[in-house]
Amino acid sequence: MLKVFICGGSGYTGGELLRILSNHPEVIVAGVTSERSAGKSVSDLFPHLHKYSALRYEPLRSEEIIEKADLFFMALPHGESQAAVDFFYRNGKMVIDLSADYRLRDVKTYEKWYKAPHKFPATLKKAVFGLPEIYRNKIRRARLIANPGCYPTGAILGLLPALRNRMISISSIVVDSKSGTSGAGRKSDAALSYCEVNEGFKAYAVGTHRHTPEIEQELSLLSGKEISVNFTPHLLPVDRGILTAIYSPLIKRITANEAVKTYRNTYKKEPFVRVLEYGMYPNIKNVRGTNFCEIGLKVNERTNTLIVITAIDNLVKGASGQAVHNMNIMMGFEEKTALASLALFP
Amino acid sequence: MLKVFICGGSGYTGGELLRILSNHPEVIVAGVTSERSAGKSVSDLFPHLHKYSALRYEPLRSEEIIEKADLFFMALPHGESQAAVDFFYRNGKMVIDLSADYRLRDVKTYEKWYKAPHKFPATLKKAVFGLPEIYRNKIRRARLIANPGCYPTGAILGLLPALRNRMISISSIVVDSKSGTSGAGRKSDAALSYCEVNEGFKAYAVGTHRHTPEIEQELSLLSGKEISVNFTPHLLPVDRGILTAIYSPLIKRITANEAVKTYRNTYKKEPFVRVLEYGMYPNIKNVRGTNFCEIGLKVNERTNTLIVITAIDNLVKGASGQAVHNMNIMMGFEEKTALASLALFP
Amino acid sequence: MLKVFICGGSGYTGGELLRILSNHPEVIVAGVTSERSAGKSVSDLFPHLHKYSALRYEPLRSEEIIEKADLFFMALPHGESQAAVDFFYRNGKMVIDLSADYRLRDVKTYEKWYKAPHKFPATLKKAVFGLPEIYRNKIRRARLIANPGCYPTGAILGLLPALRNRMISISSIVVDSKSGTSGAGRKSDAALSYCEVNEGFKAYAVGTHRHTPEIEQELSLLSGKEISVNFTPHLLPVDRGILTAIYSPLIKRITANEAVKTYRNTYKKEPFVRVLEYGMYPNIKNVRGTNFCEIGLKVNERTNTLIVITAIDNLVKGASGQAVHNMNIMMGFEEKTALASLALFP
Amino acid sequence: MLKVFICGGSGYTGGELLRILSNHPEVIVAGVTSERSAGKSVSDLFPHLHKYSALRYEPLRSEEIIEKADLFFMALPHGESQAAVDFFYRNGKMVIDLSADYRLRDVKTYEKWYKAPHKFPATLKKAVFGLPEIYRNKIRRARLIANPGCYPTGAILGLLPALRNRMISISSIVVDSKSGTSGAGRKSDAALSYCEVNEGFKAYAVGTHRHTPEIEQELSLLSGKEISVNFTPHLLPVDRGILTAIYSPLIKRITANEAVKTYRNTYKKEPFVRVLEYGMYPNIKNVRGTNFCEIGLKVNERTNTLIVITAIDNLVKGASGQAVHNMNIMMGFEEKTALASLALFP
Repeated sequence: MLKVFICGGSGYTGGELLRILSNHPEVIVAGVTSERSAGKSVSDLFPHLHKYSALRYEPLRSEEIIEKADLFFMALPHGESQAAVDFFYRNGKMVIDLSADYRLRDVKTYEKWYKAPHKFPATLKKAVFGLPEIYRNKIRRARLIANPGCYPTGAILGLLPALRNRMISISSIVVDSKSGTSGAGRKSDAALSYCEVNEGFKAYAVGTHRHTPEIEQELSLLSGKEISVNFTPHLLPVDRGILTAIYSPLIKRITANEAVKTYRNTYKKEPFVRVLEYGMYPNIKNVRGTNFCEIGLKVNERTNTLIVITAIDNLVKGASGQAVHNMNIMMGFEEKTALASLALFP
Repeated sequence: MLKVFICGGSGYTGGELLRILSNHPEVIVAGVTSERSAGKSVSDLFPHLHKYSALRYEPLRSEEIIEKADLFFMALPHGESQAAVDFFYRNGKMVIDLSADYRLRDVKTYEKWYKAPHKFPATLKKAVFGLPEIYRNKIRRARLIANPGCYPTGAILGLLPALRNRMISISSIVVDSKSGTSGAGRKSDAALSYCEVNEGFKAYAVGTHRHTPEIEQELSLLSGKEISVNFTPHLLPVDRGILTAIYSPLIKRITANEAVKTYRNTYKKEPFVRVLEYGMYPNIKNVRGTNFCEIGLKVNERTNTLIVITAIDNLVKGASGQAVHNMNIMMGFEEKTALASLALFP
Repeated sequence: MLKVFICGGSGYTGGELLRILSNHPEVIVAGVTSERSAGKSVSDLFPHLHKYSALRYEPLRSEEIIEKADLFFMALPHGESQAAVDFFYRNGKMVIDLSADYRLRDVKTYEKWYKAPHKFPATLKKAVFGLPEIYRNKIRRARLIANPGCYPTGAILGLLPALRNRMISISSIVVDSKSGTSGAGRKSDAALSYCEVNEGFKAYAVGTHRHTPEIEQELSLLSGKEISVNFTPHLLPVDRGILTAIYSPLIKRITANEAVKTYRNTYKKEPFVRVLEYGMYPNIKNVRGTNFCEIGLKVNERTNTLIVITAIDNLVKGASGQAVHNMNIMMGFEEKTALASLALFP
Repeated sequence: MLKVFICGGSGYTGGELLRILSNHPEVIVAGVTSERSAGKSVSDLFPHLHKYSALRYEPLRSEEIIEKADLFFMALPHGESQAAVDFFYRNGKMVIDLSADYRLRDVKTYEKWYKAPHKFPATLKKAVFGLPEIYRNKIRRARLIANPGCYPTGAILGLLPALRNRMISISSIVVDSKSGTSGAGRKSDAALSYCEVNEGFKAYAVGTHRHTPEIEQELSLLSGKEISVNFTPHLLPVDRGILTAIYSPLIKRITANEAVKTYRNTYKKEPFVRVLEYGMYPNIKNVRGTNFCEIGLKVNERTNTLIVITAIDNLVKGASGQAVHNMNIMMGFEEKTALASLALFP
């Protein structure tokens, strides 16, 4: 049995890791940390996780806990994750970091967008971007995974086949994303309160969201050219789910069939990506609670544009599910272990 | 007192006309039609409209009702509206048509997108597109108003200042819209049932929605060139509201200040358009129940793109409120009459 | 013109007072206070109240502001309201207090349920409980109104005709209420965040809610006997509205018709209470944004029980609308002024 | 492997059976019927059930399908279920009927509340009411299970310990229930459309709901006396979940501790009932997607009343999950098989 520790387990991604791992036959949750909730039981914070009523939060004392587990999930806020990740990694542990701290390869880009220094550039170099659909082979051998952001997961999976197959011009890509409110985390913030979010819908951080460089990094690597995108996130009045609409000019005319075939071909061995029939578009409700990414395609001949719509659950494929998928790959477990369940609908 | 008749008063736009007109000091609702609900009282269908408990639906018998009113609001499904509008108009009545039947100037475009012939091309030529921010002077003298579609209202108002002032390239405009569910009308349709829509979000009719030619017609008229847009509507799990994100390449570099100034200048006399401070983005919740269109702007210097976000209430500024605004202009009433109330928040 | 001041104007009831008063032709809002938001404009906190963009919050400095207005709405948290109400009242101003501080006639009851002393028992004696359906005549002459709580409004109006007409036994009254989330106020509280409330439903403060003694006080006064009720509030995932189901044993058999007639008779002159036809039950959606209380009745012959269902908007009839109604009565304005609009539906 | 057939698989309970059974290691779904959707694949109707894309709906031809399976889940509308259940049962198959047709022991009661004759009284006598917490031993040997209604499940489990232990007077029991919208089924009905349900809340069928005699039958059997209850259902704007508040006078004074101990004792071996700590109340969100029933207790000493709050997921413990639980018991499978997963939160 693999012993894992969850550092930062009082937020929604921490809770979701616990929920998913409760179905994992090869894993024992050895501990879970939270500074604010130290001493409380998991089920005090998450009544739905009553299986974990005996598990209590403890403060993150790295030196003490390092011996208790083989693999550390880090679900800390970015910035706070840096040193802890470095510590566990340097001391020989496997680490899957759900924060943004080890996702950007270029320290300067990190420092520009996150307004904070990166103190562990050597460790940063060892991190593998944990998107299995691109980096599966590296993940297999990795000891440190930078688990992708929720928005980047939906955006990159939507563009990967088009970029690999040089279908689109990279000059004016639009990525228009809409996320459920759990993406903002579990916190006391009047702006996230029910009456402010419900029956509302708005864009935020237009052109300035921190997931922008992460999307651009991976798209640039895929295309071999520097790519800038217009990325606009919106706040949806739902608990979970990200729907992303991506617009990019086609380089040459292609048929609907060719587009679907290319996408299906790219993802044919992927257990968690589903390319829908042409004319069908995904709904976040159909992936809720699952690790699937669903993709719908439109070749707009009137404007010569490829339109890709992707749907994921931001807490699963966009965070904790992808983290467990990465763990499964690293450990050689069957990839779908603990991730096979279908969406809860309605 | 102006006597008005509402043809097709059992749907959400009909109900909203009744609600708004209940506050109008110069108007009497002389009658309301519905084939299916003939004989029922308005408050049977809309308990919240109990002021109208004595008003009963009647079938649309044009010859009979024409003498009962001076102005006819037509809230019928497209297709059904054609002949009725023609009849009332030809017989000297003022008509405000909330359907799509008289919005597209080109009969062929209508027939292509609506898959039905237009039988009244002569009357069509007399129709004025009822967007006061563009056509106020024509509306003043008009006898037949084609009240704009909900999506086109938000899209056109978002691009009007940019096109008039030649700020943007028209080659690859993206219009990504998200509408509340009332936009689909009041009907028995399993796909619109609570459990299907709630906690969901999806795109639909990508690149094929019938509001596309309406948007393109008005943008083309504004710019003097043929414009095609990528228009994608989405279904939001809220009752009301349309948020539209518009992306277009800037022709030349402009500052944030210049963009805001241009937009504010264009709309400075408009009672129902509010250009927000730079960096602020509208929320559909803040315009709910009102006739306002709120606009937020972003000059994305990294991609040299103008991003415009607009918010309206689809049933008010996107339908019945704009219809009453048009009536106020036609009749010489103060423009804000019955339309001045603030949003219900939360 | 009547000059009014709103003390505590940054919460939902404060915002709602501003919204309603924006339609009042006889009232000028002379000022609004907030400690935390002093210096900010009303529209900074409430973008939908853009008519008030020039009005800025100021700290509550009683001595300074007392000369600026004739009537003071107090929308402060209970406890904080006590001294301010006393000050304005003693200095000859009219006061409408939306807090709980002056609602309970018995100081000991107040102290027991609110765990705090009441320091102004003399002023407390002058307060009139602001439920116009019971106390209209007193309100006309009052200088200090204790505006009823949201739950008590729905509960008392549901039982008033039954108690006045001795229809029910008072021994085991059940009041099961469900409130929209705005009832909890506008605050930073993780338990009120969107993801905690949405798709959830729960009871809270079962048998211990502070509105219990307020309900019991008024029911006891109506019946002339000491009444204890089982009062259970629940949190609904909607913005606004309280639905209350009330169960009480019938003393003698009555028909459905008699029940409806009795209720309609009691409320026949009331502008804001609507007794529905037998077999119809109210929906909070139909009173949203209005000052109406809608009542549905069921005579359950199988169990010999009277079941009353009432619906109000907690922020309007349950708070700010009722406060304006009280002001209208005190000032001799037409009672429905600023309160006549119909519900926003859907 | 047990072969099962689902008769009536196009509704929410059918979909939920398929979802739950997809995790069951001992079961093969041999077929699924739907008249209207015959020929379509399961994933055409339920995109989230893509594992079943090869499974197609077929018409319910009893004679043909009887050989294809060992156990038949009947998720047909009541009335339609009668004959089909009888056929499969008489021909030696195991049947779990999710309709109401075999729940009421007394044919006359059935005919009175369902306004239709019961044509199979002999088979009716063989049916076991499928509430494992009461009838586990009978279920083990049963061939025909009448799976309980959703409201009765929450109501009966809330009262079982109090009645068995003679804690309460049975004279004036109030059962106030609130159900998510999926309880109304998947259908085209304007009254269930998003805009009608969202932001609304109402009672319906007050005192007349067909689940009333089912609740009364089981409570009467538990107490040995004829019990009538006041049962009021409400429609909640959420997808799933039923919260039930139950009020009943205490026969003698008991402490909070005694109440909790009695309830915990009654359910101590039950895998799916959780009695919360005193002072904690269940939230439907914490049982969403699970087979758990959570119970909170309040001893109201001021009114000498026992208040019980129960929460279930109407589609799982209130329908398909309980059906699978019954199957597990009948077959001797481990009871929690396919039912062990925790709630999806948020």
